[in-house]
Amino acid sequence: MYRTHTCGELRLADANKTVTLSGWVQKIRKMGKMSFVDLRDRYGITQLVFDEEHGAELCERANKLGREYVIQVTGTVAERSAKNPNIPTGDIEIIASELNILNQSIVPPFTIEDNTDGGDDLRMKYRYLDLRRNAVRKNLELRHKMAFEVRSYLDKLGFLEVETPVLVNSTPEGARDFVVPSRMNPGQFYALPQSPQTLKQLLMVSGFDRYFQIVKCFRDEDLRADRQPEFTQIDCEMSFVEQEDVLQIFEGMAKHLFKTIRGVEFDGPFRRMTWHDAMKYYGSDKPDLRFGMEFVELMDVLKGFGFSVFDNAAYIGGICAKGAAHYTRKQLDQLTEFVKRPQVGAKGLVYARIEADGNVKSSVDKFYTQETLQAMKAAFNAEPGDLILILSGDDAMKTRKQLCELRLEMGNQLGLRDKDKFACLWVIDFPLFEWNEEDQRYYAMHHPFTSPKPEDIPLLDTDPGKVRANAYDMVINGVEVGGGSIRIHDSQLQDKMFKLLGFTEERAQEQFGFLMNAFKYGAPPHGGLAYGLDRWVSIFAGLDSIRDCIAFPKNNSGRDVMLDAPSVLEPGQLEELNIKVDLKEN
Amino acid sequence: MYRTHTCGELRLADANKTVTLSGWVQKIRKMGKMSFVDLRDRYGITQLVFDEEHGAELCERANKLGREYVIQVTGTVAERSAKNPNIPTGDIEIIASELNILNQSIVPPFTIEDNTDGGDDLRMKYRYLDLRRNAVRKNLELRHKMAFEVRSYLDKLGFLEVETPVLVNSTPEGARDFVVPSRMNPGQFYALPQSPQTLKQLLMVSGFDRYFQIVKCFRDEDLRADRQPEFTQIDCEMSFVEQEDVLQIFEGMAKHLFKTIRGVEFDGPFRRMTWHDAMKYYGSDKPDLRFGMEFVELMDVLKGFGFSVFDNAAYIGGICAKGAAHYTRKQLDQLTEFVKRPQVGAKGLVYARIEADGNVKSSVDKFYTQETLQAMKAAFNAEPGDLILILSGDDAMKTRKQLCELRLEMGNQLGLRDKDKFACLWVIDFPLFEWNEEDQRYYAMHHPFTSPKPEDIPLLDTDPGKVRANAYDMVINGVEVGGGSIRIHDSQLQDKMFKLLGFTEERAQEQFGFLMNAFKYGAPPHGGLAYGLDRWVSIFAGLDSIRDCIAFPKNNSGRDVMLDAPSVLEPGQLEELNIKVDLKEN
Repeated sequence: MYRTHTCGELRLADANKTVTLSGWVQKIRKMGKMSFVDLRDRYGITQLVFDEEHGAELCERANKLGREYVIQVTGTVAERSAKNPNIPTGDIEIIASELNILNQSIVPPFTIEDNTDGGDDLRMKYRYLDLRRNAVRKNLELRHKMAFEVRSYLDKLGFLEVETPVLVNSTPEGARDFVVPSRMNPGQFYALPQSPQTLKQLLMVSGFDRYFQIVKCFRDEDLRADRQPEFTQIDCEMSFVEQEDVLQIFEGMAKHLFKTIRGVEFDGPFRRMTWHDAMKYYGSDKPDLRFGMEFVELMDVLKGFGFSVFDNAAYIGGICAKGAAHYTRKQLDQLTEFVKRPQVGAKGLVYARIEADGNVKSSVDKFYTQETLQAMKAAFNAEPGDLILILSGDDAMKTRKQLCELRLEMGNQLGLRDKDKFACLWVIDFPLFEWNEEDQRYYAMHHPFTSPKPEDIPLLDTDPGKVRANAYDMVINGVEVGGGSIRIHDSQLQDKMFKLLGFTEERAQEQFGFLMNAFKYGAPPHGGLAYGLDRWVSIFAGLDSIRDCIAFPKNNSGRDVMLDAPSVLEPGQLEELNIKVDLKEN
Repeated sequence: MYRTHTCGELRLADANKTVTLSGWVQKIRKMGKMSFVDLRDRYGITQLVFDEEHGAELCERANKLGREYVIQVTGTVAERSAKNPNIPTGDIEIIASELNILNQSIVPPFTIEDNTDGGDDLRMKYRYLDLRRNAVRKNLELRHKMAFEVRSYLDKLGFLEVETPVLVNSTPEGARDFVVPSRMNPGQFYALPQSPQTLKQLLMVSGFDRYFQIVKCFRDEDLRADRQPEFTQIDCEMSFVEQEDVLQIFEGMAKHLFKTIRGVEFDGPFRRMTWHDAMKYYGSDKPDLRFGMEFVELMDVLKGFGFSVFDNAAYIGGICAKGAAHYTRKQLDQLTEFVKRPQVGAKGLVYARIEADGNVKSSVDKFYTQETLQAMKAAFNAEPGDLILILSGDDAMKTRKQLCELRLEMGNQLGLRDKDKFACLWVIDFPLFEWNEEDQRYYAMHHPFTSPKPEDIPLLDTDPGKVRANAYDMVINGVEVGGGSIRIHDSQLQDKMFKLLGFTEERAQEQFGFLMNAFKYGAPPHGGLAYGLDRWVSIFAGLDSIRDCIAFPKNNSGRDVMLDAPSVLEPGQLEELNIKVDLKEN
């Protein structure tokens, strides 16, 4: 071992001990005849002292050290005269007697400090240096701890972690698969799994009873801001359960993680909300409940007074921003611009201030009497000093989503989205199907194996759009961290689902034949869910992006700029795989 | 929840409780007016009783149940009159009062019992049914437990589990890569990692200090008996360590696993053997030390007496099988056939029995005097009743490997390879290079990042074949369960290695540029190792193949016959990926 202690563990009680430390040179300061070196490793920083009077040659060598040199130092632990209360080792320093340079370093392309001067691209190219920074490394320590606690919790409850294969078959339904040509089976391809969904269902058919896996999944999608082509799921499934059982077990897991990782304890159960209410009151199936500002619908209150925008609307709704009546005209104009951005897509914004005397002053005063405006104020339970913001449109769902964006923006502006506050929620009773106007057909809202609510099964024949699923999402601070469902375990019901989803019998057989076959041999009732580990870690770490809780992430073109992957293959490799590159001309 | 208890937990103390169980019908027996059903789940088997006198209709329905039906039963726990001491629930039975058929089953293609009538192919096609068998499921429970204990042990020692990417770059050196065409980067490919070797070294450069990961790795090789295209490694790396530190930590891990999983404790440290001695005394770099039968070299003893086979040999060596002098002529002929099989490749076998009076009776008596044979006997320390078996050849290494096969076969025949006995060993001091006659060049015995022993570095210039590596393998019962090395952390030494291995500067830069670059920024001394989880589980489970400790394994053509993967893609998928299938004509 190149050390007796790490750079994070020596304290005043260790004074006078002879120790050996190894690590990286964080900083060197020369003060008169003394040189001070901050030595860094994963565990902390310890100050080394080189004293010209006691060892001129040693001190001279120390003065030649550069940033990020790797050194090994032996010396004596001494009490510092000028203590540093900001670090755990701040009471001591090491009076160096030996110095061994283990490796040199050229000057790094950016500073290895919490606030680095490196831009995103540079940090990604030199990710191995970026990972030296506390801020980044701590996210990965958190990730380790979370995964460890997930396993502890589930192991105690009898869940078995079972590894499912990475080389599986392609199922073109849903997102695009990454595929892998098979050399031994020319012309054929494996696919990388988008999730182990069907395999975990097979494990239930096998009687595994309680399964989980922390597992890489893959989706070849055009990368939006916070997506990665490979991502990690906490994938879980249970047999002989109903929805309530699954919610209990995994609410327990969430609480265990909050307690052990963040030291947060919750009183009572998580709030539950139907999908219908989530859309109605928050315009989102993943509402951020750290703050209120629920939607109030105003069709009854504001329609039919000659304001054509509202009169022609299929939906009018608003939010009440407590205490925001002080918003200036300029701020309100900026909000109007915000909702008119193409990403939001509203046509305009109506606002109303509740003045100190209780009067309502709105941007559409010429259409409404104070009486009507007071009725509106009552609908919001608004008080003097509040600001009411109203959107309308000809498609209720679209307008709600716009209003959702506005609500979140107001939450940001009013400082209501504290990263150290956590609002957890189960969204339940999702619709089983989504209607697609373009294709004129239904799609499964979760996936084709989701069970309808038993009481809604008759509606499958008469009004599929109304069928509710035994499906649920866990939402934290407006982020969907996980979701799942009770699955269909009856092969006839599964056949019916495939039909409703427009699968021909042949295609269903081709893609899911193994599962439908398995169901003929005694499938138990089962259900489960999957969490996105990357996302959950990023919430716990207070990050805006999942990228910084992944050791070696890819950029928006799916490239690993450090490894320079993907890259061109050697011709011999392609030939062995029986494939040819076939680039399209522009 | 569909149950109050599992099928494995009810005991006599639960008598008179009303319980609900769910599970699979293992067996039905009708005896007079009573019907007995064995109900099975992952946790055990519980006997259900349906009594015609107390519920004719219920009993009738029970009689119609088929094997593998999934049922839910409510009833009262009662003491059995005829107890079954072979199962933990054997003292009780459930007097059924309600029966709910949750799912039916068609007749399974093989019996779901410990000794099934299903052949390998059938069991693989219906793997979800095969996994219902105790024997198979228990292997996966063991696997879960092993992985869990590995994580516990390493977490306590400050190792961080860090996920490295699955979509990386191709490094044609070594085994073949599986590759993944990138849609977003037309004409370019990712590769699936053969191991996270370079990435874990980067994590050391990043200061992660102690890393591990239980991780899928991929090799596109023609599958030999016990290989899978995807396999799981326990991958570990540490900084600021020397070889001894790594051996200590991971010997500790092995002992922890033996104790917690198998209840086995070892006295003292694992045996260590140089690669040179392993080859000399066992003809293998992974000797099975559950039994002795070390090689004895006989060049000095038997050469030069006119027996031309020996006189022309570059190597003569043998083993002494204690107490096997009773081997018949037929048995000895079979051994001769065994060593002459093409897989072993020896030309013949010389044997000698030590008779009761101490005389040696050999198959080459006409060439040797009793005096010479007695000298041979002394070389083996052989005693009356022992059998000596001798091989010779013109290539010492080849002959040793043949003798190794013979030794293992004799171990099998004499019952010396008990699956419940464990002999652990570190093989150390591997050569750094292997000379390849065909290519007339050196190859890295482990990989190009392995550090030579510091004292052997001068030999790099003069006699590379003599350089020993700081490399080590852990061997259990003749199986290499893991191996690793101290790595090169000096970029100049790494450059030299690449040169010795025939890399041009350009190719080294192209393939490992990111690593060589990283080494310029202060790489710490580091080293580690990787275990094969599949193999280790199969040793603990007493399996002959790794296949049965993998939930969904592939066959020898790399196919998953259950999923029917790999398979042909839809033309649109290929087009999007900018590739074409290019089958060769026969």
